[in-house]
Amino acid sequence: MGLLVRVAQSSRHLTFSSVRLISSFKAEELQVRLTSTPAAKPDNDKLTFGHHFTDHMLEIDWSEKHGWAPPVIKPVTTLNLHPAAKVFHYACELFEGMKAYRCVDGKIRLFRPMENMSRMAVTGARTSLPSFDTAELLKCLKKLVSVDQEWVPYSEKCSLYIRPTFIGIEPTLGITYPNEAKIFIILGPVGPYFPTGMKPISLLADPQYVRAWPGGCGNFKMGSNYAPTVSIQAAAAKLGCQQVLWLYGDDHEMTEVGTMNLFVYWINEQGEEELITPPLESGLILPGITRKSLLELAREWSEFKVTEQKLTMSRFVKAIREGRVKEVFGAGTACIVCPVDKILYQGEELVISTMNDPEHLTQRFYKEINDIHYYRKAHPWMETIEEDTDDVLRTFGAQ
Amino acid sequence: MGLLVRVAQSSRHLTFSSVRLISSFKAEELQVRLTSTPAAKPDNDKLTFGHHFTDHMLEIDWSEKHGWAPPVIKPVTTLNLHPAAKVFHYACELFEGMKAYRCVDGKIRLFRPMENMSRMAVTGARTSLPSFDTAELLKCLKKLVSVDQEWVPYSEKCSLYIRPTFIGIEPTLGITYPNEAKIFIILGPVGPYFPTGMKPISLLADPQYVRAWPGGCGNFKMGSNYAPTVSIQAAAAKLGCQQVLWLYGDDHEMTEVGTMNLFVYWINEQGEEELITPPLESGLILPGITRKSLLELAREWSEFKVTEQKLTMSRFVKAIREGRVKEVFGAGTACIVCPVDKILYQGEELVISTMNDPEHLTQRFYKEINDIHYYRKAHPWMETIEEDTDDVLRTFGAQ
Repeated sequence: MGLLVRVAQSSRHLTFSSVRLISSFKAEELQVRLTSTPAAKPDNDKLTFGHHFTDHMLEIDWSEKHGWAPPVIKPVTTLNLHPAAKVFHYACELFEGMKAYRCVDGKIRLFRPMENMSRMAVTGARTSLPSFDTAELLKCLKKLVSVDQEWVPYSEKCSLYIRPTFIGIEPTLGITYPNEAKIFIILGPVGPYFPTGMKPISLLADPQYVRAWPGGCGNFKMGSNYAPTVSIQAAAAKLGCQQVLWLYGDDHEMTEVGTMNLFVYWINEQGEEELITPPLESGLILPGITRKSLLELAREWSEFKVTEQKLTMSRFVKAIREGRVKEVFGAGTACIVCPVDKILYQGEELVISTMNDPEHLTQRFYKEINDIHYYRKAHPWMETIEEDTDDVLRTFGAQ
Repeated sequence: MGLLVRVAQSSRHLTFSSVRLISSFKAEELQVRLTSTPAAKPDNDKLTFGHHFTDHMLEIDWSEKHGWAPPVIKPVTTLNLHPAAKVFHYACELFEGMKAYRCVDGKIRLFRPMENMSRMAVTGARTSLPSFDTAELLKCLKKLVSVDQEWVPYSEKCSLYIRPTFIGIEPTLGITYPNEAKIFIILGPVGPYFPTGMKPISLLADPQYVRAWPGGCGNFKMGSNYAPTVSIQAAAAKLGCQQVLWLYGDDHEMTEVGTMNLFVYWINEQGEEELITPPLESGLILPGITRKSLLELAREWSEFKVTEQKLTMSRFVKAIREGRVKEVFGAGTACIVCPVDKILYQGEELVISTMNDPEHLTQRFYKEINDIHYYRKAHPWMETIEEDTDDVLRTFGAQ
């Protein structure tokens, strides 16, 4: 018990693409303790992202000495940690973001949840946190959503945001892997990203600000990727831009948009209609699940070329000048897709006609993914959650 | 109240070199609550870094709504934070490391403490945490050390490690600056870095691992710089190396050693005796206080050339081949200086004669700084702490 492989290693290279599992917690050992004071649910039209939480959370503790403890569903309470806990000092932390939807057939479903679980395990290895069985975590997560099922908004515009988090809590100073860690999941209802219809955003593209770099960890969902971006976002806002277009390198490679993956839909230099997104191989790009899904959809449609390819600002500016850029958008869990209409670059405002065509691709993706989320279009990407509270409580012996 | 400037900005560039202060807590408002159950102090010869803590901590809370609350010295207790607190998700955190010494004249002193306070404020701006008056924080810190003065080891080999920490604790998801934050300081006795005399270490220099990059935040003491290094350190250990020599760029620029600044003492290409350390302007280097002190000492001695200059592996390897490298060492608060005797680079072990000369420079720096720390040599870098507990308690009205 308690043995684990933190990082799969070859003789010379650290690889984080797979995590070898030695031990894990088990969903069948899940303990459920329900709140006696459930909170009032906010109105669906008054939801602010990240400000509302459901009644319960999942917590799973690990120590090197004792291995994984049984998972616990319990009322949301504070985490009481020693001030030397490594998470406070060395950013020993990672998270995931996913959603549950109340579908048109009344069932509650998750969107490709094993993708998040797998990414979480891989990020855990990069962060020197212990391995776990991703299928077991998903079972626990589903039970948590089931327990708080009434918090999944009765709305085809809202959803229940799910935040799996993994932190190192060993109460000692010193930059080493933590010998104590904690997984927790909190939930909260969220409203539509575009409450009054899709609105394009403007971006600041300034090469002096760099989000990620080869040999770093921009391709993992570690907490350490985020704190450094907050003051840069403020700098963008000061220049009237809503988000940052992150560039990299002397050739101003376009990498990400705020916390979203970047997509460009254009006529390329060969005159072909093409959807481009930056490739994962560079290590600069977070492997987004929306990104992956849009690529899969577009390849299935087979109506235009779909490539994962490096795109520099000089290629992009040339295409803008020649009228070849049709659409630019970000893609992520929060918005699905977010159209871009302006990029401020080297003192010049590049205007993009993303929204001009009422049948534009950004809108088509948005509708398609939304139809899948709410099961207006049945799709194997969606996983149903058990909704029978009585059954949940019976099975898991709520105290 | 509560107004602050998070980041000093010019029209186009974010600058973090100065922090404009609008409001701060005041040391004169400090509240002291002493423990009724003081802990037993560990033996000086059984100290493990970061594993022992004193009886008391300092805590100062801030909120956008109410500004800074009065500072509080109280028994060390857990931080009880909502699981959505930004520090758990987005690495909204920073720290400092410094030490108090029991000097040969019986007084307790700090080494250049305002340097740490200033760096903390500048890192705070980069991390989008609120500004504060650094002189007020130092006053509070001194009182904390005074309250726990019996924890400062009675030893010229040990010291009291001081860990100022600053975290964002707003309990909402979303990557923004936190509207609630907390400064806390914990203390713990630490033993000598070299218990049985100075021992050289070996380094892995592999360009596939990158610690910091231009446009990032490697020059700030943010928590986000540390988590990504833990698994790389493990990779180095697997290859028999004790630390990582961090390289940057296609020309394999030498930047830092583990969590220390890098120094090379050599005969340069012009035949001059020279002490080199990488320059701060690149944004790749943490502005270490030991680094700064060694540079100032060496410039005062005026016995050899002292430069802050980019140094690449090719220049270094050439110098090794030509027998021009005299010493390589890391510099930091934990060790003062740490000699390097081997660097594993591209499959080859570069051997460095750092320890060969019994009067070597690394040793001289070590002795010089140690003499200053323990006041065997009086120096204005040391700041005395008030040691009269009765007076402290009288002044601060302990409850």
